[in-house]
Amino acid sequence: MAELLSIPRSVEWNDTHITILNQQKLPFQTEYLELKELADVWDAIATLKVRGAPAIGITAAYGLALAAQRYETDSIAEFRKLLQKDRDYLASSRPTAVNLFWALDRLVASIAHTSSVNEAKTALVHEATRIQVEDEETCRTIGEYALSLFQDGDRILTICNAGSIATARYGTALAPFYLAKEKGINLHVYASETRPVLQGARLTTWELMQAGIDVTLITDNMAAQTMRTKRITAVIVGADRIAANGDTANKIGTFGLALLAKAFGIPFYVAAPLSTIDLATKTGQDIPIEERNPEEVTHLAGMRIAPEGVNVYNPAFDVTPHELITAIITEKGIIRGNYETALPALFNI
Amino acid sequence: MAELLSIPRSVEWNDTHITILNQQKLPFQTEYLELKELADVWDAIATLKVRGAPAIGITAAYGLALAAQRYETDSIAEFRKLLQKDRDYLASSRPTAVNLFWALDRLVASIAHTSSVNEAKTALVHEATRIQVEDEETCRTIGEYALSLFQDGDRILTICNAGSIATARYGTALAPFYLAKEKGINLHVYASETRPVLQGARLTTWELMQAGIDVTLITDNMAAQTMRTKRITAVIVGADRIAANGDTANKIGTFGLALLAKAFGIPFYVAAPLSTIDLATKTGQDIPIEERNPEEVTHLAGMRIAPEGVNVYNPAFDVTPHELITAIITEKGIIRGNYETALPALFNI
Repeated sequence: MAELLSIPRSVEWNDTHITILNQQKLPFQTEYLELKELADVWDAIATLKVRGAPAIGITAAYGLALAAQRYETDSIAEFRKLLQKDRDYLASSRPTAVNLFWALDRLVASIAHTSSVNEAKTALVHEATRIQVEDEETCRTIGEYALSLFQDGDRILTICNAGSIATARYGTALAPFYLAKEKGINLHVYASETRPVLQGARLTTWELMQAGIDVTLITDNMAAQTMRTKRITAVIVGADRIAANGDTANKIGTFGLALLAKAFGIPFYVAAPLSTIDLATKTGQDIPIEERNPEEVTHLAGMRIAPEGVNVYNPAFDVTPHELITAIITEKGIIRGNYETALPALFNI
Repeated sequence: MAELLSIPRSVEWNDTHITILNQQKLPFQTEYLELKELADVWDAIATLKVRGAPAIGITAAYGLALAAQRYETDSIAEFRKLLQKDRDYLASSRPTAVNLFWALDRLVASIAHTSSVNEAKTALVHEATRIQVEDEETCRTIGEYALSLFQDGDRILTICNAGSIATARYGTALAPFYLAKEKGINLHVYASETRPVLQGARLTTWELMQAGIDVTLITDNMAAQTMRTKRITAVIVGADRIAANGDTANKIGTFGLALLAKAFGIPFYVAAPLSTIDLATKTGQDIPIEERNPEEVTHLAGMRIAPEGVNVYNPAFDVTPHELITAIITEKGIIRGNYETALPALFNI
């Protein structure tokens, strides 16, 4: 496929190996790694060389398909046993990543009715590819919907990295910027650096710059001043989990941006695939907020920046209440308000 | 004076030298420097070993008084010439620091009617000491007023370092926390790290910890989540300049905190001495916002954290509109609203 834009991809299948972008080295070094062994795939996921729920799922799926190509048995029963063992091994690489289990289990299920080993080997590669293609389509569709909300010249603020390198391609919150670029629509992105782990500074700026998209980096505490002086027209963010009532868990700082957007009277959009919507979670109050290692706050790139022994509060996520969300943009369309009825309805489209 | 608390001081006069806390090395190393020569004082100010407008003024005043002790002349006219020369030299150490010129000129003026060199030498030390004592009194009084707004158990958020080490003692926004500790009132401070230069992470946490005050560090984008989950009861900040209508310029991020405080219905206080109020500046729109070196954002402690060539917006300050300020706390009392008439009135008390 001819690519008009240089939109970085996180994962590619190459028959004898998987190529991944080493996100740990960004933005200082653009390093692509060839994963040939199952252990390489396990390590890439465990050590965050690949990150972002969809990208992790795709990598794991390809990893399992790759391993299966080498099973030396003619017995489909034996094949299934080997597959299950490797599935469990890969699933242990990041035990809290729901998308990882989902992708691996989809591969296992894809050969439930397969009768020959050869057929199974092909089916696994096809299923893994399908996961990637579907995710790219989902992201592109989200991007098309999101772009319909923006106009040429708009200045849009985002946080963290809901980008191409976290998905198959395009990303979620960043998808409209790639599509705008393809169509010659000028959007200016402001990327909040996203302490403590700096996904905005390290990843969002980098991937948008690869595609020649106009992006300006700010520190997180510059959001209000930027909204005022740069006349920000919208905020768009990704999501880690969306509750049935529309309350949205996302990277720490998102809730604050939603409150600032309201104060400035500018729309606040959440862009996320249906797989992020968890109808079993009734409201945001049911979403546990992980508190992470204090060293993420007291250190930066391994260097201490705060006194020894200081108390730290380090919530990884926050929950933005649904009433602050102007619209949720999914691959099934844009919904505005009335999330409690509109969100379940999306699953019936 | 017996000190109940270990409240760090920025500057001390010791007859043959000036002792300063080297703020550049905080919080990793608590280093006190003895400044014996005028060039040492110049260097300490120029290289930010001492920072904070009052602390800079005090250091410069002591530096000039120290230099004058060594003038070997019996002619008061000659003495004044030497003093003026050294005054001009010290004034060049940080050409934009208004407080620096103010303190130096106050020393020069203090010997305007002095007839002997010996008398002049003593007068200069007295005047420099007076500047420091007055600043400590101002800060303590601000702290007393501010403390009257808090209750035992309150959880209070601050940004940057409006602290003891930026002034003679106590600081402005941090003063109530030292006084509370002296009185056995428990206040819990949340310190926002204050990117890009991290004065909150490096300095505010350090100085409060020295006095055994309960302080928790957060990154700037955790403010909204902290207000919600830790039930923050107030925000208190310092000020760089307060316009005649109450609009307040302070460290970048302050404006955002004021908007969040409003959203949560919690009071937002500015603590600052009268010297910060500039009645000649009508509104915040008349306050120029300095944009600083992009490297402050793209680098941290000399290390790059963002891609080469990325666009950066790096405003050093923002302006909080007066309508978001619950009260301004000065050494002449607390004023609430109606700043246009109340602020000028303070100067007549």
